[in-house]
Amino acid sequence: MRNEDALANGPIVTLTTDFGHSDHFVGTMKGVILNIAPEAQIIDICHSVQAFDILDGALTITQAYSYFPSGTTHVVVVDPGVGSARRPLLMSTGKHYFVAPDNGVLSLIMDREEGVRVRHITGQHYFLQPVSSTFHARDVFAPVAGYLAKGIDSQKFGDEISDYVRFSAPKPKAAGDKTLRGVVLKVDRFGNLVTNFTPHDVPSLFHSPPARFKIVIGNREITQLHNAYADALPNELFGILGSMGYLEIASTRASAAQLAGSGKGSEVHIVLEGAAVASSGN
Amino acid sequence: MRNEDALANGPIVTLTTDFGHSDHFVGTMKGVILNIAPEAQIIDICHSVQAFDILDGALTITQAYSYFPSGTTHVVVVDPGVGSARRPLLMSTGKHYFVAPDNGVLSLIMDREEGVRVRHITGQHYFLQPVSSTFHARDVFAPVAGYLAKGIDSQKFGDEISDYVRFSAPKPKAAGDKTLRGVVLKVDRFGNLVTNFTPHDVPSLFHSPPARFKIVIGNREITQLHNAYADALPNELFGILGSMGYLEIASTRASAAQLAGSGKGSEVHIVLEGAAVASSGN
Amino acid sequence: MRNEDALANGPIVTLTTDFGHSDHFVGTMKGVILNIAPEAQIIDICHSVQAFDILDGALTITQAYSYFPSGTTHVVVVDPGVGSARRPLLMSTGKHYFVAPDNGVLSLIMDREEGVRVRHITGQHYFLQPVSSTFHARDVFAPVAGYLAKGIDSQKFGDEISDYVRFSAPKPKAAGDKTLRGVVLKVDRFGNLVTNFTPHDVPSLFHSPPARFKIVIGNREITQLHNAYADALPNELFGILGSMGYLEIASTRASAAQLAGSGKGSEVHIVLEGAAVASSGN
Repeated sequence: MRNEDALANGPIVTLTTDFGHSDHFVGTMKGVILNIAPEAQIIDICHSVQAFDILDGALTITQAYSYFPSGTTHVVVVDPGVGSARRPLLMSTGKHYFVAPDNGVLSLIMDREEGVRVRHITGQHYFLQPVSSTFHARDVFAPVAGYLAKGIDSQKFGDEISDYVRFSAPKPKAAGDKTLRGVVLKVDRFGNLVTNFTPHDVPSLFHSPPARFKIVIGNREITQLHNAYADALPNELFGILGSMGYLEIASTRASAAQLAGSGKGSEVHIVLEGAAVASSGN
Repeated sequence: MRNEDALANGPIVTLTTDFGHSDHFVGTMKGVILNIAPEAQIIDICHSVQAFDILDGALTITQAYSYFPSGTTHVVVVDPGVGSARRPLLMSTGKHYFVAPDNGVLSLIMDREEGVRVRHITGQHYFLQPVSSTFHARDVFAPVAGYLAKGIDSQKFGDEISDYVRFSAPKPKAAGDKTLRGVVLKVDRFGNLVTNFTPHDVPSLFHSPPARFKIVIGNREITQLHNAYADALPNELFGILGSMGYLEIASTRASAAQLAGSGKGSEVHIVLEGAAVASSGN
Repeated sequence: MRNEDALANGPIVTLTTDFGHSDHFVGTMKGVILNIAPEAQIIDICHSVQAFDILDGALTITQAYSYFPSGTTHVVVVDPGVGSARRPLLMSTGKHYFVAPDNGVLSLIMDREEGVRVRHITGQHYFLQPVSSTFHARDVFAPVAGYLAKGIDSQKFGDEISDYVRFSAPKPKAAGDKTLRGVVLKVDRFGNLVTNFTPHDVPSLFHSPPARFKIVIGNREITQLHNAYADALPNELFGILGSMGYLEIASTRASAAQLAGSGKGSEVHIVLEGAAVASSGN
């Protein structure tokens, strides 16, 4: 199950949280992990997941985890329910382990992986005692990651379950004969508006040549697609198939979010000229 | 003195600074440490300590250091006096080393540890020459941490001193018969207002059932305590014993700081009904 | 070419980008590198280079790289031209490797190093396939760094070129008989205004005693130089030779940028009394 090459060089533990950078939270987690597994290599993926935003956390880890070596343990803590009855989970894809609260933050990974196994972590002797009701990243998730990195078999942490929380990312829906309605999933660091449209949702948009279309966001209409951010004119808004696999609305060396006066959660419509859209509602 | 297990896997050096994330400062420190001790594992605890804020730095490192393995070296740089006569210090608790300016930033660790030894670092041959007057993190603290990680005996860096700077965190004080006056020590990433009240200061608040009380901050009165952040109603302000060991004023999935219109340094009063408070003034 | 000591402890790969902290970009790069070279130690230098700002990236890596051990690979990604015809480069100084886009971001290192060798990376079998047109940090720069860390000879990645992009940082210019005009290169985390004046540009300013002078920025005139940030009075603006090697305009425990109402790109004049300035225009 483990990548022996990776283990030979020290197990890798990644961290993805909404803890931000201004407190001790992340540093404390690292201490707990290293105290159990000093040979672990701890890798920060992201700590600026939007506070309490489970979908944002799911998008972040889903875009990063698969690039890591076999045997990596990923700790994902976006946990507004800390201290409540929500369960701590250990998920295995066969290649990677995930330690996270049972609130759906692993949902988008489940969409991409066959045959995941999900366990309810009940082995309290692996926890930091006494377990607080406010900082399970320190008391539950970090120590479990430490013991996984140390090589403890995943079965020891608890029994498999199938009733874990799982949600679907919002999908575009037909809105009339020629129109699809989607949403901005996130705005990235450069101001690119990452929508929830994939090539699967609007294949004709990504044909060569693409169908005639317009993308409507706020009071702006976009009629250009480009392959690279640098291909457009200054202050032009354009569509681009981004590296996350979604249609992005972008601008060259400028924030499309500012130019469009839009942000996370904004509605986006794609109007395809001369062709009825395939309904992708679900 | 050193944990041989930890050393076998490479010495750990942690960094806690107010250098932020937008400059080369932290990266340069890491280079200096690794050039001396390439086998060191460098761990970022926090670089967003509030600029020049020694108490904020003290709170941050105090909440994290003890979770790390024996033999860890912690570099703590919040150093408004860089280049002045303030001394560089090397403190040992027997389990951990701390390298920091002599300005009190280690005070709260001293409160928790018996028998610390504090040395004035005078071994200039360990410094990066020429030593600048503006970046001792690079020229003094990082190289000393590197040589500690490499195994140089702490005695070699300078003589023990006892006249180092040490301050006390602000403690709550009695303000009348039934009232204690405290202060907000910090606002965390989620907007929780971390006060300076501990269970020791107001034991009756944390009894089960708690004394009747109200917590007053700004123009808000709080009469609920909860065990978990998720236990409250939306937009409710409540008290909670946080993982730092202090009473926090919090709100579920929202910023208590915004709801209360309060922040760091804001006064907080606890009024206990029907019981005189024990004076905890000092 | 490689430092065997460093290699013995795992190769070091540093990251300097304008990717910020709120997305998966940096974490994904780390995964790609570790998947190729699990023994690599990945070090974050800075991810808050100003978005699209090549000079800011150049200043950042130039202030940090030389402190790292021989054999370190530095990945520098500020890449507004991603997906366009701009080439990926591998530069060697004999001591360090740099992987970066061909847009000048390595220019200031070239100013400091003799005999750099620059290669156009063309070995597509080292890339993550299919190569996207929007995320070469993941698909090109990270895997090349991974293979370098793994010990692949730099010659294998492509042929040497000499027509790479190289720019000069803005230099101060004479503006009349006794006046030099410079510019604020950046504002650091503490609000210090880092100008482009070096001691070479105005040697008389850094004599002891210095020439009579005034520094003019916005509507403020500065007539004091200090050796340490802590040496000044509250709210005083003063000049100081900073650790980057440039004249900074600073204030004690306060933001000089705020006090002077100035920022990146602001003009700065130095007027030297009683002595004609040497022209340093170029």
